[in-house]
Amino acid sequence: MGLRTLLVAAPLAPGRVEVSGAEAHHARDVLRLRPGDAVRLCDGAGRQGAGTVAEAAPGRLAVTLAEVETATPPSIAGLTIACALPKGERAADLVRMLTEIGVGALRPLVTARGERASAPERLARVAAEALKQCRRAHALILLPPLPVAALAADSGRLMVADPHGSPLRPGAPGPATVAIGPEGGFTEAELGTLLAAGAEPARLGPHVMRIETAAVCAAAACAAAWEHP
Amino acid sequence: MGLRTLLVAAPLAPGRVEVSGAEAHHARDVLRLRPGDAVRLCDGAGRQGAGTVAEAAPGRLAVTLAEVETATPPSIAGLTIACALPKGERAADLVRMLTEIGVGALRPLVTARGERASAPERLARVAAEALKQCRRAHALILLPPLPVAALAADSGRLMVADPHGSPLRPGAPGPATVAIGPEGGFTEAELGTLLAAGAEPARLGPHVMRIETAAVCAAAACAAAWEHP
Repeated sequence: MGLRTLLVAAPLAPGRVEVSGAEAHHARDVLRLRPGDAVRLCDGAGRQGAGTVAEAAPGRLAVTLAEVETATPPSIAGLTIACALPKGERAADLVRMLTEIGVGALRPLVTARGERASAPERLARVAAEALKQCRRAHALILLPPLPVAALAADSGRLMVADPHGSPLRPGAPGPATVAIGPEGGFTEAELGTLLAAGAEPARLGPHVMRIETAAVCAAAACAAAWEHP
Repeated sequence: MGLRTLLVAAPLAPGRVEVSGAEAHHARDVLRLRPGDAVRLCDGAGRQGAGTVAEAAPGRLAVTLAEVETATPPSIAGLTIACALPKGERAADLVRMLTEIGVGALRPLVTARGERASAPERLARVAAEALKQCRRAHALILLPPLPVAALAADSGRLMVADPHGSPLRPGAPGPATVAIGPEGGFTEAELGTLLAAGAEPARLGPHVMRIETAAVCAAAACAAAWEHP
């Protein structure tokens, strides 16, 4: 398993680092870290390092960091998944999997047939937890929801999951966005708006996929292709 | 959504088809299908067709099929995922996603650090449900569990998820197996056994992945590559 990871908000630098709030509580009362224990810190912006707990008071933890490394984001960090969020635990699973794969950002889409996006705080907690578990250095960016028309107006390479498209061609490493519709799919109008804006229709597989399967498939296909540019 | 699908055990042929057991109960009492309703039948072995309910009695449903089509399995059906099963609902999620992607078979692996594989009947029900939802024509084959050494002795192309390997190279379409270790990974001995048997070590991404994320990533990478042979 290696060292336990704590996620801190401020940019990391060598020396004494104060951990506060829920993360300090978690470190002291759940992980039971005590002075002298080794721990890994990460700031979610690429900086991370191993250190030693110097002090563990209720709600406050101090860690001494010897050095800080700055990680280069993997090529898959250039990918944004824009999708109608599935409900409840399925949205959490989606966030966990995209974090583990290394996708850069998740953009909830507001669609005619989709559920209303919900519980952004819960998803942020899930993303933070997954980042620590999978030892990712850069946080998955949870973007604010956007209607389909606004996404289409956005610049950059855009692919849209479409069972009538040709198989997904990841092409050169990002930046790129893959848009995925809700259960029941995009409406004809929504798909038309995306295609008119230059989105490439991409088929993700031979069968109907739920949102999270489609998102993970698109991400995994890009991750694999972009590792061999 | 299209037609509701019923899964029948016997090979489908045009004419009158009797549906019995849990599927007949589901059709009549949950889907509320009645004589004259259109329905889709699938036998999980590639045969499928649209028909009309001729009779709906308690625990027994008769359907008249005009014609039966036989689907060709997609290239990703050549892939077997061999993995330590995650616990509870995560194993069900894995089965759903592999079914939607089109993977041919799931082989539970008995590993030193893994959980004991459990509830095969539950996973079979999940696979059957997912097959109907995603309109897959060939059932995901749930193979019996195998220890790592027995998998290594198996013939055929074998890849093993290994963070120290080079990025996964799907190569030509199957048959192939990707082996994925439990939380905590394969032991050195298990990995050694697989590599000695010729397994190719394959890195699935830059971060630590849970079992189901690794399985889905490997499947999606093969599915994408095998669509463009």
